[in-house]
Amino acid sequence: MPADENAQPRATLAEIRDLLPRLPGPDLEAATTARLRQAQLTKPPGSLGRLEELAVWLATWQGRHPPRIETPRVAVFAGNHGVAARGVSAYPPAVTEQMVKNFIAGGAAINQLCVQIGADLRVYEMALESPTGDFTQGPAMDEEDCALAVSYGMMAVEEGFDVMALGEMGIANTTAAAALCCGLFGGDAADWVGRGTGVDEAGLERKRQAVQQAVEANRQALDDPFTALAALGGREFAAIAGAVLACRLARIPVVLDGFACTAAAAALFIADRRALDHCIVAHRSVEPGHSRLLQTLGQQPLLDLGLRLGEGSGAALAVNLLRAAALCHGGMATFEEAGVSGPSD
Amino acid sequence: MPADENAQPRATLAEIRDLLPRLPGPDLEAATTARLRQAQLTKPPGSLGRLEELAVWLATWQGRHPPRIETPRVAVFAGNHGVAARGVSAYPPAVTEQMVKNFIAGGAAINQLCVQIGADLRVYEMALESPTGDFTQGPAMDEEDCALAVSYGMMAVEEGFDVMALGEMGIANTTAAAALCCGLFGGDAADWVGRGTGVDEAGLERKRQAVQQAVEANRQALDDPFTALAALGGREFAAIAGAVLACRLARIPVVLDGFACTAAAAALFIADRRALDHCIVAHRSVEPGHSRLLQTLGQQPLLDLGLRLGEGSGAALAVNLLRAAALCHGGMATFEEAGVSGPSD
Repeated sequence: MPADENAQPRATLAEIRDLLPRLPGPDLEAATTARLRQAQLTKPPGSLGRLEELAVWLATWQGRHPPRIETPRVAVFAGNHGVAARGVSAYPPAVTEQMVKNFIAGGAAINQLCVQIGADLRVYEMALESPTGDFTQGPAMDEEDCALAVSYGMMAVEEGFDVMALGEMGIANTTAAAALCCGLFGGDAADWVGRGTGVDEAGLERKRQAVQQAVEANRQALDDPFTALAALGGREFAAIAGAVLACRLARIPVVLDGFACTAAAAALFIADRRALDHCIVAHRSVEPGHSRLLQTLGQQPLLDLGLRLGEGSGAALAVNLLRAAALCHGGMATFEEAGVSGPSD
Repeated sequence: MPADENAQPRATLAEIRDLLPRLPGPDLEAATTARLRQAQLTKPPGSLGRLEELAVWLATWQGRHPPRIETPRVAVFAGNHGVAARGVSAYPPAVTEQMVKNFIAGGAAINQLCVQIGADLRVYEMALESPTGDFTQGPAMDEEDCALAVSYGMMAVEEGFDVMALGEMGIANTTAAAALCCGLFGGDAADWVGRGTGVDEAGLERKRQAVQQAVEANRQALDDPFTALAALGGREFAAIAGAVLACRLARIPVVLDGFACTAAAAALFIADRRALDHCIVAHRSVEPGHSRLLQTLGQQPLLDLGLRLGEGSGAALAVNLLRAAALCHGGMATFEEAGVSGPSD
């Protein structure tokens, strides 16, 4: 985030909350047109499985037919976490900034995956020099900080992109994701924690304890998803929530990456069950909390490849599937055009 | 296949069988080099999940490091089946040839998917005017016909491609796939049949009966996987088996599409447990027999998207993942290059 925060337009959490009832709904006309076309394409009905659903979903949330995936953007938000000091990650907190430099230099996995899909990659450093508060002792962010980060994420969304793949980087942020999920959905801390970048048994136990303490220390914030996001999330989580909202307003479908991205978006889901209808989860992370969260949100991820990297890596991979869906939908011949017979009876 | 079959070099099934002990093994040097590099890349070890395995697998079977996916080829073999006359498909047999024309005109799903991955698409019509024999009454092909089709598939493999994605088209060929699996691996016919392009309950029962009759009528052919392939497969199955063998000889890794492709390759697996080590299965088909077959072969497919189209569609989609794996492997910075810290302890 820029040093001069006063130069930024800001919204309060109340103003952000007020956006929810005003989010645009599905474009039912585009959806109907897409379904009608799907039925005419030279393939047995349903035989392209989820690619068919994806084509209709893209039309619905791009608000146009045919849907297109020509200008994908990948946005990676990076934040640092006070809880990292509690030994919950296999890597030191300095790695967040080091990896941001690696993204900028083009050396990370996400850079290669963006080359593959022809995506414009943007990396947003969020005050890495000032980690959020240690949420085992109180809220990670106050409401104003959180609102600023949400606003920042909203501003990262520009017109002119036909899909937004969201990712994150932040040492200790699977602990924050677990804490946020535990705070939002309940359950034991152990249900939501996993090994993240690869902690050992002792590290896993420290994560579990940190999550349990975080939920206890922030109990008063948990009745509202936005105050929970402030208390148990981090700046990249808030920014992701903001980007999800801004994409809805701009009719840009969203691909959420893994556990941290989905957890950030989950706060919006609690605020409004329709808030994530324009979002799809790219992949099932190795983090056990992600599977639990996916089930809670009713999301079926597109890929299950044992990924646990973050950076938007799974989201970028899933863009290949969205593009395949859009290409088949837009480019295939109909039975009539191709002179192919329909079913025998 | 060309009308003048005498112009083609031919092998006998015995000669083809004799290739198996002479297939090249893994390039262990390339594999070791790939594993060493994986461990140095700027990501937690293992965090790219199957993409890491794929990069090592590509290096192993391309026999080079770094592995590359720059020139993919998609080969689709089309055949017609005598059993189609028994009402086992939702579509009339004429659709095989109509769809081949659609592939050539660029109107099918596989055309769009090849555009996406920049693949060279080749479509091989295999004597569509002469369906194989009805295998409920005796062998679909005699050994000579089968050997010719295997040879034809072998000849479709040229140098200069770094991955081969195999697909098929053939009305009634999920019935042939089920019969071949039932013949090769046993079990009840009902374990291997599914709805294919979308048959109703009565059609499903006709498929089950056809598979059961096929296995009974060809019992004497089932002791040997190549005579089983002749008796219960079809020309596209034999050609796929040939292409798999020729790719191994040419050090070209293979992506198998769905149920029919995997069933064709399974005949080689029975002949030699190492024969498919250079093959990966792209996706889990909706056909229930495919899941059973995958388990038998110890193959974990890359995608599970509810596909049941064939045409190499799932294989082409999976090439995106192979390319992602190769790009990350070759293009990412090492920890040392990027100045990123390793684990804390």
